[in-house]
Amino acid sequence: MSGFPGKEGWWRLPPGSKNTVCDVPGVLVGHQTLHEGEIHTGVTAICPHGGNIYRDKVRAGLAVLNGFGKSAGLLQLAELGQIETPIILTNTFGVSAGIEALVRRAITENPDIGRKTATVNPVVMECNDGWLNDIQRLSVTEDMVNKALHTTAEDFAQGAVGAGAGMKTFGFAGGVGSASRKIICGDGTIFTLGCLVLSNFGVREDLRICGEVFEPDREESRDEDKGSIILVFATDAPLDARQLGRLCRRSSAALGRLGSVLGNQSGDIALAFSTAGTVSHDEKCAVKQLTGFNENDMNAVFYAAVESAENAVLNSLWHSSAVLGRNGHKAPAFREAYELLNRV
Amino acid sequence: MSGFPGKEGWWRLPPGSKNTVCDVPGVLVGHQTLHEGEIHTGVTAICPHGGNIYRDKVRAGLAVLNGFGKSAGLLQLAELGQIETPIILTNTFGVSAGIEALVRRAITENPDIGRKTATVNPVVMECNDGWLNDIQRLSVTEDMVNKALHTTAEDFAQGAVGAGAGMKTFGFAGGVGSASRKIICGDGTIFTLGCLVLSNFGVREDLRICGEVFEPDREESRDEDKGSIILVFATDAPLDARQLGRLCRRSSAALGRLGSVLGNQSGDIALAFSTAGTVSHDEKCAVKQLTGFNENDMNAVFYAAVESAENAVLNSLWHSSAVLGRNGHKAPAFREAYELLNRV
Amino acid sequence: MSGFPGKEGWWRLPPGSKNTVCDVPGVLVGHQTLHEGEIHTGVTAICPHGGNIYRDKVRAGLAVLNGFGKSAGLLQLAELGQIETPIILTNTFGVSAGIEALVRRAITENPDIGRKTATVNPVVMECNDGWLNDIQRLSVTEDMVNKALHTTAEDFAQGAVGAGAGMKTFGFAGGVGSASRKIICGDGTIFTLGCLVLSNFGVREDLRICGEVFEPDREESRDEDKGSIILVFATDAPLDARQLGRLCRRSSAALGRLGSVLGNQSGDIALAFSTAGTVSHDEKCAVKQLTGFNENDMNAVFYAAVESAENAVLNSLWHSSAVLGRNGHKAPAFREAYELLNRV
Amino acid sequence: MSGFPGKEGWWRLPPGSKNTVCDVPGVLVGHQTLHEGEIHTGVTAICPHGGNIYRDKVRAGLAVLNGFGKSAGLLQLAELGQIETPIILTNTFGVSAGIEALVRRAITENPDIGRKTATVNPVVMECNDGWLNDIQRLSVTEDMVNKALHTTAEDFAQGAVGAGAGMKTFGFAGGVGSASRKIICGDGTIFTLGCLVLSNFGVREDLRICGEVFEPDREESRDEDKGSIILVFATDAPLDARQLGRLCRRSSAALGRLGSVLGNQSGDIALAFSTAGTVSHDEKCAVKQLTGFNENDMNAVFYAAVESAENAVLNSLWHSSAVLGRNGHKAPAFREAYELLNRV
Repeated sequence: MSGFPGKEGWWRLPPGSKNTVCDVPGVLVGHQTLHEGEIHTGVTAICPHGGNIYRDKVRAGLAVLNGFGKSAGLLQLAELGQIETPIILTNTFGVSAGIEALVRRAITENPDIGRKTATVNPVVMECNDGWLNDIQRLSVTEDMVNKALHTTAEDFAQGAVGAGAGMKTFGFAGGVGSASRKIICGDGTIFTLGCLVLSNFGVREDLRICGEVFEPDREESRDEDKGSIILVFATDAPLDARQLGRLCRRSSAALGRLGSVLGNQSGDIALAFSTAGTVSHDEKCAVKQLTGFNENDMNAVFYAAVESAENAVLNSLWHSSAVLGRNGHKAPAFREAYELLNRV
Repeated sequence: MSGFPGKEGWWRLPPGSKNTVCDVPGVLVGHQTLHEGEIHTGVTAICPHGGNIYRDKVRAGLAVLNGFGKSAGLLQLAELGQIETPIILTNTFGVSAGIEALVRRAITENPDIGRKTATVNPVVMECNDGWLNDIQRLSVTEDMVNKALHTTAEDFAQGAVGAGAGMKTFGFAGGVGSASRKIICGDGTIFTLGCLVLSNFGVREDLRICGEVFEPDREESRDEDKGSIILVFATDAPLDARQLGRLCRRSSAALGRLGSVLGNQSGDIALAFSTAGTVSHDEKCAVKQLTGFNENDMNAVFYAAVESAENAVLNSLWHSSAVLGRNGHKAPAFREAYELLNRV
Repeated sequence: MSGFPGKEGWWRLPPGSKNTVCDVPGVLVGHQTLHEGEIHTGVTAICPHGGNIYRDKVRAGLAVLNGFGKSAGLLQLAELGQIETPIILTNTFGVSAGIEALVRRAITENPDIGRKTATVNPVVMECNDGWLNDIQRLSVTEDMVNKALHTTAEDFAQGAVGAGAGMKTFGFAGGVGSASRKIICGDGTIFTLGCLVLSNFGVREDLRICGEVFEPDREESRDEDKGSIILVFATDAPLDARQLGRLCRRSSAALGRLGSVLGNQSGDIALAFSTAGTVSHDEKCAVKQLTGFNENDMNAVFYAAVESAENAVLNSLWHSSAVLGRNGHKAPAFREAYELLNRV
Repeated sequence: MSGFPGKEGWWRLPPGSKNTVCDVPGVLVGHQTLHEGEIHTGVTAICPHGGNIYRDKVRAGLAVLNGFGKSAGLLQLAELGQIETPIILTNTFGVSAGIEALVRRAITENPDIGRKTATVNPVVMECNDGWLNDIQRLSVTEDMVNKALHTTAEDFAQGAVGAGAGMKTFGFAGGVGSASRKIICGDGTIFTLGCLVLSNFGVREDLRICGEVFEPDREESRDEDKGSIILVFATDAPLDARQLGRLCRRSSAALGRLGSVLGNQSGDIALAFSTAGTVSHDEKCAVKQLTGFNENDMNAVFYAAVESAENAVLNSLWHSSAVLGRNGHKAPAFREAYELLNRV
């Protein structure tokens, strides 16, 4: 398993071959990163499939763990249980650029939008990277979003890249992390659940690594937890919108394991989509055959959700080099601290 | 169309042959009524189908229009999107008797409950009939609930019967009313939507009949809207839990048409279930084939919901004779007042 | 009372002196309108007070009547029960411009944003004016949003202006409408509730004017209800976030009175704020004295909400001249049709 | 600190003097326990204050972490943000007895209920103790509920007593546990937060004690997590309903720390109330002075919530003796296993 080495006995479920969200067939991820002077920010794009997502929507659900956030597109997602654009992750003040880019892209792919058919609901999620990045400069542009979308692939970097370039997690450089787990159903059927996080939450003295307080002798600072975390889950199991919402609500347990209390100023949002059974924008038939997932097997999904989310956050730490940000703010590399503590 | 005669041009959709919730194949309704001295109350039972509902659950959704109410069983309904008992309607202090009866009935039919399988989630909904009925006497018994369940049939009475025995609607005797409408989909497919209300809301000076203020010269009283309304929708269209919830949220529009503002002390709850595609309690397969309903056809559902709900409330008025209740409280018969106003 | 003349006996509560949302002291509204060739769109800005809203936030609540919409900023509003920017109304593809303008304005007024204090949560709400306006051209700019903000005043135009320039309501030109009503409490205390709508919903054959089907002989079209409505309520009554949310949920009753069923593709959102008791961004004291509103008086609020919302929609119709939009689409003037039917 | 000894450095906040929910002044707890043959169940009552709770309601909020449960009274609690009866905890099939007892008690104390004023909203929360207790026998009676209410006091037993008599937690005898923590605000103001859990969730192989997998060598069983947990928080901090709801949502983090994934069949519900600033049932004044709590200090509340909840669950384990239940089912004592593992 790539990434954070884990601890014997802490996790029980097998990951997919990459241990990323791209273990779910069809899912693609791309980044655009900006490290320049006081600017440390970027964009990460997640495509549920490689086709026209507006025409072939995917079922989706969400959970607002803590609503102190500015993500866009969640209202319609909650009402209709589907998403119809790629998902863009970026910084808080990059949301408008994300919306604009997704709207233009959808129009280009679907010239009937807003003229002969409905408009489009762009999904853009964000964390505040203002501690490392001079967020006031509004550095994220439509062009960056488009580039992130154009570079989506099955393999992608983790750590302080893309939307994660200026993020801070439990006091360390954090950012983009990913992991996956198998969903092992009662009848032997196996699906995959992948998670990608944009991780920007937690204070150093709270961090638990596989249950251990990371630095027990560390004096408590008065540093407040002002960050956020976005969790995006993908699965090939045919969960409906309600079940995907249930899945998302398990994210809090993963954050709890890591030592977080879902701090006040943190926008903690989980979104999940299923690649099984897309929904046609142009459906004309009143009745349609679908594939459903047995509610009695939901525990298998929940274990996979908690493990993959916890692992994804740890991977965001593991893969991040130190970031020297604006105003002399420095987010150290977790991996160095971890190895220093003789844990490897 | 039986019941309230309506007004030319007000409604547009055709009702089912009975114009009741039982136009949806399989749905059964039964009452138990108590009119004795100061006691005017009762029980109404709705069975989604004639089989073992615990074993073959039906998909369900809900909307809390105003949560000033004491209905039971809605938490699990919202989480799992299904119901596993008949639905009992009764007065506010009859909820415990309703729960107890449904639990015992479920155990009798399913001796594994609580021993080898899960417990059971009884759904009991209520309005406060305390203006006509001496509700403090807690007159509703398990026996009454059982009798209501045993008498369920495709034909049932409306008005001041069953749970509706002591209800007051816009100042008149109200209670149980029902209606139905066709869901006419874009591809020509036709389904049925039925509604049964337990109607106990509104003040007389607010009442609008098909848009007309009922008694424009009536002096405004300071009588407060302290009632409630329960709306139960049934359909054979294969809506999932999310879509059934969307359907339920349209009930407010029907209440608005009748002149209501969803008064403060009113527990206004809508519940909907679909008889299509039951969910097996004992499902072992991870994946299951389902029938789904095209989101693009939801408007056909929404029109049917608003019309059937408005019609059902008017039928609860139309079918109620005057009730002389406790403490000299009298709820007059709407039909007399309506005819007096030369409207028939 | 300015605007739509109403009908004897339909409404009961007295309006404020202007019969607009600006009857609530401190509230200001401004527009920026674009009618050029195929472009018919604009921006409307609502300021809860004339000061620095980021520093002195106002308490707020919301209701999602139908979530088929793309409004921004509602997640944090729901979590924290407050708003910290003016409210921008515009077309669906103008949301990104609205966000960007509000962010820059907040930074200008509060240079610590994103550097020494939190970021900011812009509230931008939208309807799709794509039937009259060539929405693909993304004509709404930051500059327009700023101009709308700079022209806010106590007096403002209604009809096809500002964000309402290209909106269609029940088949007519619609757009911005406003009204107000008094909240008359049990102890004689009087507050004001104002409503401003961006009205873009409903099909012509559904329209009811004060209860009457507007054109009973009109043949039913197959025109679908694809619009939306945004309702913004303001009050000087000291409602808290929960109570403001309850107020918002009454909007459905007003839409029902007008003949709407809250159509499938309609983003119907209500937001309410109170100008009483602002919340300091920089509050240091753990405990603070507040003014609260008696729950037992909520009915007075609910009547005011339903009447002002219904009146505001009718005013949006009343004040709109005909709009000749893109592709030859024409939205006729309601007032002409109304007078033709001999109703004035 | 009484109860589970904890681990150096795991918790940071000081508990109250009792380390129970009764560290919040005025809160009282009482039990009624039934251990007879196949019957192992009971009732626990929590009184927010010693007066007439219907007349002087307390502000309350809730979070449904997993809605697979049958608790009663939460609908109205969510709408109005208050509770007006003591809180009864019992087994799933004891809910009806709990409702009936609370209704009768409220009527006795307030003879105007249902006759001259509104009805009453009983709050009864439950877990399924069917593995140890023959729940089909419906052993919980009104009399038991009344006795639990009559014995409420500031000191109360923990473990397999009251509603906790037949509960199982992570494979051990569990049940009632409690703990408290101080809320230390930025300006030095100190409040108390207490938590009482009815703990009936988790499988043995998932248990983490202060971060350590309890029995790392334990073979995984296929035992499913079918339990539930009810968490009741009390505080003297003047939180409003929205803030109390935010507090409740942090419970998931505590459950995550303990190793839970909020299993599918688990009804996980958190409720919180504040003893500050009761709400008069008979309030006549439109406007009222209130005490509010600074949102900027919510992190202090969240840390207290997560620590007290985790500690309360561990105390439910610590204080439970082994229970030999129905059908030979045995829930061993956690404390023995813990000491055997040389941890004390």
